[in-house]
Amino acid sequence: MSPPINRQVLLASRPEGIPQAAHFRIVETPVPVPGPGQIVVRNTWLSVEPAMRGWVSAVANYSEPVAIGAVMRSFAAGYIVASNDPAWPVGTAVAGLFGWQDYALVDAATIGRRVEETDLPLSTALGVLGLNGVTAHYGLLQLGQPRPGETVVISTAAGAVGSCVGQIARLKGCRAVGIAGGPAKRELCRNSFGFDAAVDYKAGDFVPALAEACAGGVDIYFDNTAGAISDAVMTHLNPGARIVICGTASVASWVPPPQGPRVERHLLVKRARMQGFVIFDHPEYHAPARAEIAGWLRDDELTYLEEVLDGIEHAPDAIAGLYRGDNLGKRLIRLAET
Amino acid sequence: MSPPINRQVLLASRPEGIPQAAHFRIVETPVPVPGPGQIVVRNTWLSVEPAMRGWVSAVANYSEPVAIGAVMRSFAAGYIVASNDPAWPVGTAVAGLFGWQDYALVDAATIGRRVEETDLPLSTALGVLGLNGVTAHYGLLQLGQPRPGETVVISTAAGAVGSCVGQIARLKGCRAVGIAGGPAKRELCRNSFGFDAAVDYKAGDFVPALAEACAGGVDIYFDNTAGAISDAVMTHLNPGARIVICGTASVASWVPPPQGPRVERHLLVKRARMQGFVIFDHPEYHAPARAEIAGWLRDDELTYLEEVLDGIEHAPDAIAGLYRGDNLGKRLIRLAET
Repeated sequence: MSPPINRQVLLASRPEGIPQAAHFRIVETPVPVPGPGQIVVRNTWLSVEPAMRGWVSAVANYSEPVAIGAVMRSFAAGYIVASNDPAWPVGTAVAGLFGWQDYALVDAATIGRRVEETDLPLSTALGVLGLNGVTAHYGLLQLGQPRPGETVVISTAAGAVGSCVGQIARLKGCRAVGIAGGPAKRELCRNSFGFDAAVDYKAGDFVPALAEACAGGVDIYFDNTAGAISDAVMTHLNPGARIVICGTASVASWVPPPQGPRVERHLLVKRARMQGFVIFDHPEYHAPARAEIAGWLRDDELTYLEEVLDGIEHAPDAIAGLYRGDNLGKRLIRLAET
Repeated sequence: MSPPINRQVLLASRPEGIPQAAHFRIVETPVPVPGPGQIVVRNTWLSVEPAMRGWVSAVANYSEPVAIGAVMRSFAAGYIVASNDPAWPVGTAVAGLFGWQDYALVDAATIGRRVEETDLPLSTALGVLGLNGVTAHYGLLQLGQPRPGETVVISTAAGAVGSCVGQIARLKGCRAVGIAGGPAKRELCRNSFGFDAAVDYKAGDFVPALAEACAGGVDIYFDNTAGAISDAVMTHLNPGARIVICGTASVASWVPPPQGPRVERHLLVKRARMQGFVIFDHPEYHAPARAEIAGWLRDDELTYLEEVLDGIEHAPDAIAGLYRGDNLGKRLIRLAET
């Protein structure tokens, strides 16, 4: 099944805002051969996620920007097909920052992880058992610190992180209110992910619908969007509220700095806390969070949704599509039979 | 020395923004006589503080607004002059919410506190040993969580809270950078309160001067102002920064909500935390914080500055003056010989 060549998606130019298809190009190179201590991974799944916009941005960020002409940085999952390290035999399922390409040449020391949950689909290593699930788990439980009976509001609630946050909130005894764009995503929140209420931010009645869904106030706001959605949520904070800043999907550009209603008085009067985090800061957290999430998956207490794009030719437009709101579920690119 | 009448400052009308002299009127009433379980306090000192603006506001707040026609709520310190409670004998020094008036009739159960630090001036019970000092102590130490070597930036640094924050920061091994309005307050920060650097936000070079003073980045921002001052500080956050929201002195009105640069990306990229607090929520914290501050005062490790207005006739304009930046030091109104 493997092609004799390695198709790679390179960053062709630096985007100002959201990376579009034209910022990438696909090249064909020879399949790499491992040197000493190296392995080659045949990628089965490539991940597409909102954070990738930041990875190509020249603006100060939590990681070095992807260089022009380099393979686009991404998480991927696949199997080792060649190895010069006996600790990583051929056939091992692995996940890591293998990039948008068919084959990744990796120093064994920098492999992300061996995929332990081989009873579950490999694609979950990029979603609910990958960055998305661990992000949801850390942000909600460590920063949000939910208590039973509290109301948790989640923006991009139908997305890979948001849907997981809502379900974990309910597992912890909270009421989950989802905010999503359009009737299909709103219904997904309610019917597939079991949110107690869901509100469509694109609908004309968003502000009153949110007020009704949050009649008892908001104890935790898990924010993936910033912008007008957050402005609406901030008016409903309960005393002692926690706002978890996970992403800023609604803001097309931070140059010049976008304006919005000041938050200081909300934070002061409601004794509220607003906190950002980057899940890469907490490597020790990933394995135990994955173990708990895997348990919920096996017990059918947690579900997830994937949107599969077949073929690497879909990669260049895939990030832009996320920001257009095209997708339903965790966006993945499939490169090989699974 | 006591007048035969009780002069009281009443709230005459509800301000939209900052309360001005015209929002108050002074009346003369009989000196009260205590009923069962009551005491009468002769106020020696009345407090004037920025938070009083919120106490008269009809906008949702952390306390019920002062009613029109009621004595203006304020902290005061004085001595018991009549008592029907043997636990509170005549002559006891007390501090509490006794209001802007010569004499306060108080249920013994609602007295704020007996002033224990009788070796120190009674006026300190309203400032460095009162709400201001405890606010500085709690906000910096509990929310800011300073570590030696960190840089702490403080807005309204020459004020009653800010000057205390800067000095405690230095006692904890931090570098203190003050932001204050005008050369006199800037010099006060440097020469009287020992800040490592001080910047004048009214000066034309504020933004570059702040950048120079914060060349190593900002670990803690103790914010009393919000507004343009905060916007400038936010661009210098270090990873893991803590922003303590104590007040919003620079914002004249919150209706309609003032706009400013969105903070979400700063919080996300810098993994920063922004948190508001109200010191009244933490009654158990006051006595131990006061004890530590009193120790610093006795050891000459902490200093404070007071601005004394002699006579209750200064009260109506006193809050507006704070917001005009008229004062140097903790603003107090003296009603009796001390």
